[in-house]
Amino acid sequence: MNILLTVAYDGTNYFGWQKQKERISVQQKVEEALSRLLKNDISVRGASRTDTGVHALEQGVFFKAETTIPINKFPFAINPFLPEDIVVSKAVEVDDNFHPQYSVLKKTYEYKILNSRFKIPQLRNYTEFVHNELDIEKMQKSCRFFVGEHDFKAFCAAGSTAKTTIRTIYDLTVQKNNNIISIYVTGNGFLYNMVRIIAGTLIYVGEGKIKPEDIKYIIESKDRKKAGKTVSPNGLTLFKVCYI
Amino acid sequence: MNILLTVAYDGTNYFGWQKQKERISVQQKVEEALSRLLKNDISVRGASRTDTGVHALEQGVFFKAETTIPINKFPFAINPFLPEDIVVSKAVEVDDNFHPQYSVLKKTYEYKILNSRFKIPQLRNYTEFVHNELDIEKMQKSCRFFVGEHDFKAFCAAGSTAKTTIRTIYDLTVQKNNNIISIYVTGNGFLYNMVRIIAGTLIYVGEGKIKPEDIKYIIESKDRKKAGKTVSPNGLTLFKVCYI
Repeated sequence: MNILLTVAYDGTNYFGWQKQKERISVQQKVEEALSRLLKNDISVRGASRTDTGVHALEQGVFFKAETTIPINKFPFAINPFLPEDIVVSKAVEVDDNFHPQYSVLKKTYEYKILNSRFKIPQLRNYTEFVHNELDIEKMQKSCRFFVGEHDFKAFCAAGSTAKTTIRTIYDLTVQKNNNIISIYVTGNGFLYNMVRIIAGTLIYVGEGKIKPEDIKYIIESKDRKKAGKTVSPNGLTLFKVCYI
Repeated sequence: MNILLTVAYDGTNYFGWQKQKERISVQQKVEEALSRLLKNDISVRGASRTDTGVHALEQGVFFKAETTIPINKFPFAINPFLPEDIVVSKAVEVDDNFHPQYSVLKKTYEYKILNSRFKIPQLRNYTEFVHNELDIEKMQKSCRFFVGEHDFKAFCAAGSTAKTTIRTIYDLTVQKNNNIISIYVTGNGFLYNMVRIIAGTLIYVGEGKIKPEDIKYIIESKDRKKAGKTVSPNGLTLFKVCYI
């Protein structure tokens, strides 16, 4: 049986999604819970590696197992085996052609910024704090320059092993609700740190350090140094994964 | 010099505001920070005692001290001495007639509910989780029955030492934003657990266990057993304190 879970997690206390030696990961916790529930060693694969401190609302998690638990009851069965910062919200059966990464059609990330004079402690693990008042309209005007198929080399962290730096962004929006600015970006795939560099570049626009139309030239330059800084992982959430 | 601070804190890791022996409190952390900054033993008084796990966005904190730090720079001076879950956002000088509790004109609390099929781990310390779908309109229709001067004995935890259980609620509103329901209640003062019992009673209304107009009779009964349960402290935030 091929099972796809939708998993939410608070990444604050984990060294990212991916299993590692001697450092606690979300993948390890999910595998331990499934292995205990199903009384069998279970290995899982995620749709997306998320870094240390990055959160997920709907991470896709795939595994193979034999079970008599009805698939729609599976979240209720597995949640008691998970720590309180990891929650399974959905389980579906998928066919043999399904692949946890290659079957991904598009992914959406959310990046949250607290734009205020002082930090709000309750938001410290879930937002990037920006003290300077950001011009939300300018940030919104920048969005259209990102949309489409582009070589996003300027928005890729050094040391990436990606075969190509060409990606397609389907949608990018910036919203403001009181002093929280939320950036939503949907694409067919993302380079290493790409969303955090896009967010950092949008902050530069909001601060007036660069103009909205400069985005076009930054993309064309393919030069990481021209884009904004890589902002903190805390503000980042893997928001949604859509499969074929 | 009489100084009034506005202090935000994440109450998750504290046994409430009030200083206690052998258990860590927000008051203790604020006093330690001020004592280190001002190189003198400083005692503070809060506008409101908040319980274990309860948060604050704008707690009022009063103390007397001699300092040459300009009052508008004071938050920047004190914040480096505080842990990351406590932040001072404002400091003002007040006159000798000011009293941290008696000078309070009104207080606003916020109570947040996550109303969804599954928990969201990022919200676990900041919301009460309710699985049953709540009827927001019915909750909103209940609000007017609370507003005004009433004997709120039915909404007071047993063991309260309050001289009178009469309080005035100036405003009560219920808002919904996606799957988050926020209750805002403003009053001249609150009995022990009063906001958490009001929230628990509004949840009963939202679940259809009681009708909006039943609130009137619950208040009149002065019987704690007629009101809803005391919901968790996690959802509660001291939102604002207004002084005379």
